[in-house]
Amino acid sequence: MGVDLGGTKVLTVAITPDGAVQQRCYDTHHARGEVEVVDLVAAAVLQCAADQEVTAVGLAVAAWLTADRSTVTIAVNLGLCDVRLGEAVTARLGVPVILENDGNAAAVGEARFGAARGSRLSIMLSVGTGVGGGVVIDGRVLAGGHGLAGELGHMSLDDQGPACVCGGRGCLECYASGLAIARSAGTTNAQDAVAAARQGDPAALSALESAGIALGRGIAQLSAALDPDVVVIGGGVAAGAGDLLLQPIRRAVRNVRSLSTVVDPPEIRLAACGPEAGALGAAAMVVPRRS
Amino acid sequence: MGVDLGGTKVLTVAITPDGAVQQRCYDTHHARGEVEVVDLVAAAVLQCAADQEVTAVGLAVAAWLTADRSTVTIAVNLGLCDVRLGEAVTARLGVPVILENDGNAAAVGEARFGAARGSRLSIMLSVGTGVGGGVVIDGRVLAGGHGLAGELGHMSLDDQGPACVCGGRGCLECYASGLAIARSAGTTNAQDAVAAARQGDPAALSALESAGIALGRGIAQLSAALDPDVVVIGGGVAAGAGDLLLQPIRRAVRNVRSLSTVVDPPEIRLAACGPEAGALGAAAMVVPRRS
Repeated sequence: MGVDLGGTKVLTVAITPDGAVQQRCYDTHHARGEVEVVDLVAAAVLQCAADQEVTAVGLAVAAWLTADRSTVTIAVNLGLCDVRLGEAVTARLGVPVILENDGNAAAVGEARFGAARGSRLSIMLSVGTGVGGGVVIDGRVLAGGHGLAGELGHMSLDDQGPACVCGGRGCLECYASGLAIARSAGTTNAQDAVAAARQGDPAALSALESAGIALGRGIAQLSAALDPDVVVIGGGVAAGAGDLLLQPIRRAVRNVRSLSTVVDPPEIRLAACGPEAGALGAAAMVVPRRS
Repeated sequence: MGVDLGGTKVLTVAITPDGAVQQRCYDTHHARGEVEVVDLVAAAVLQCAADQEVTAVGLAVAAWLTADRSTVTIAVNLGLCDVRLGEAVTARLGVPVILENDGNAAAVGEARFGAARGSRLSIMLSVGTGVGGGVVIDGRVLAGGHGLAGELGHMSLDDQGPACVCGGRGCLECYASGLAIARSAGTTNAQDAVAAARQGDPAALSALESAGIALGRGIAQLSAALDPDVVVIGGGVAAGAGDLLLQPIRRAVRNVRSLSTVVDPPEIRLAACGPEAGALGAAAMVVPRRS
């Protein structure tokens, strides 16, 4: 079973070892604090399992985790701070629970069952309200030295750039998030910007182009360090925009890419798992791989 | 045994499982092509082993390797192209051989025995004639999707910047290599620039400062993606310059660093293994770890 727990929604899937979804459940919620969150997760798992036996749960959370994945350091939208959430859910359900950050879990979902299937090292960038990400090596999450690797939206593209909510300057998120796209297109949200771009609106087209170029520059910087074979572009905005976002990304990667004479640039692909990527990835983390 | 094979030098060490060097041998060479290179490596190993039994060899090479580490794709300074070098040395010596890129091997050396000992995810940047690098996760090299991760000198800091030998623009190496430091300081080489800076020469001080800032910006970009706990600065230029290079690096990392309110920035440390890091790392790859 995989659970993707956001600030207002919870998506649960039961999958076979091949990643086929046997059952999916979706709900909105307002759970805040450890007691409510554990109640919510337990109820979601039991509802989705129906009369099937639950053997293990992968739990993707919109949160920062410790490097050992035992503890939610902070989850602002869930009112959690320093909570050993995996243990707490295990105590309730009596099965092993593996915690992961939601952006990383989505990257695992795409690597195991989606657009990055078969890759050695894939990077996922999710363009939604913000810009999230994850790095997956041979099917496993790159956690980093303090557990916070994959915060790709907060790579700084320009240290003289605009201030970011994170405290940095010129972060990728300042140029390529749904909020940035809407602001630059003059629309109320990124969905409207995508719709306007499809009608040929110049400001909206230019907003997506700028976002794509920023994403492409970020990918190019990562490529020299990580050498990904596949980069997956996901999130609601990317799903709507498709090639309007992917083409400027590919162009920017080709333009910036160093070592291009000897290194194959990564393939840039649109995400294939949709909004279920996080839950699928969480489930995949507790399913043994066939290799 | 670990061998570090450069274009003109070969350094061989025999180590204990703790990384204590039992024997070291150094030689210059002009070996070119598979036959001469295999002869050279075999002779270096047998000479350094003396009458001890050789059980396995780690071989660090100034080369690009395939992702599976079986094959040297290209080693310009050794005249090798598409050579299964590990197999060829195994055929000669009758022991297992593990190949690695020299920058990555040095990063392993520092992670296992040097400045990044005990780290979960460390990055090494080597400032010599160029800028090399490597990423080590739990003691193992991050190889990447095509085997070419860790080319940190070719991260682009400015896609409108100067042209780099690699075909890219504004690569870190263009700003922070020994060549760039010497050019900017107006000296014949980086060693002279370091000496002049120690005498208070303003142009030389400014050259090291600029190089440090560029390195710091590169490290800050990597930090959001990889979240290293330790970054090791090595190479001949860094060993000579010490704090003259490290202080601007630390300052630039603090200035750019996103997420700084929640993420500990990486510790920036001077390399501890010196020119033996590559050979030590190569040896470490064939020594079982005590954990």
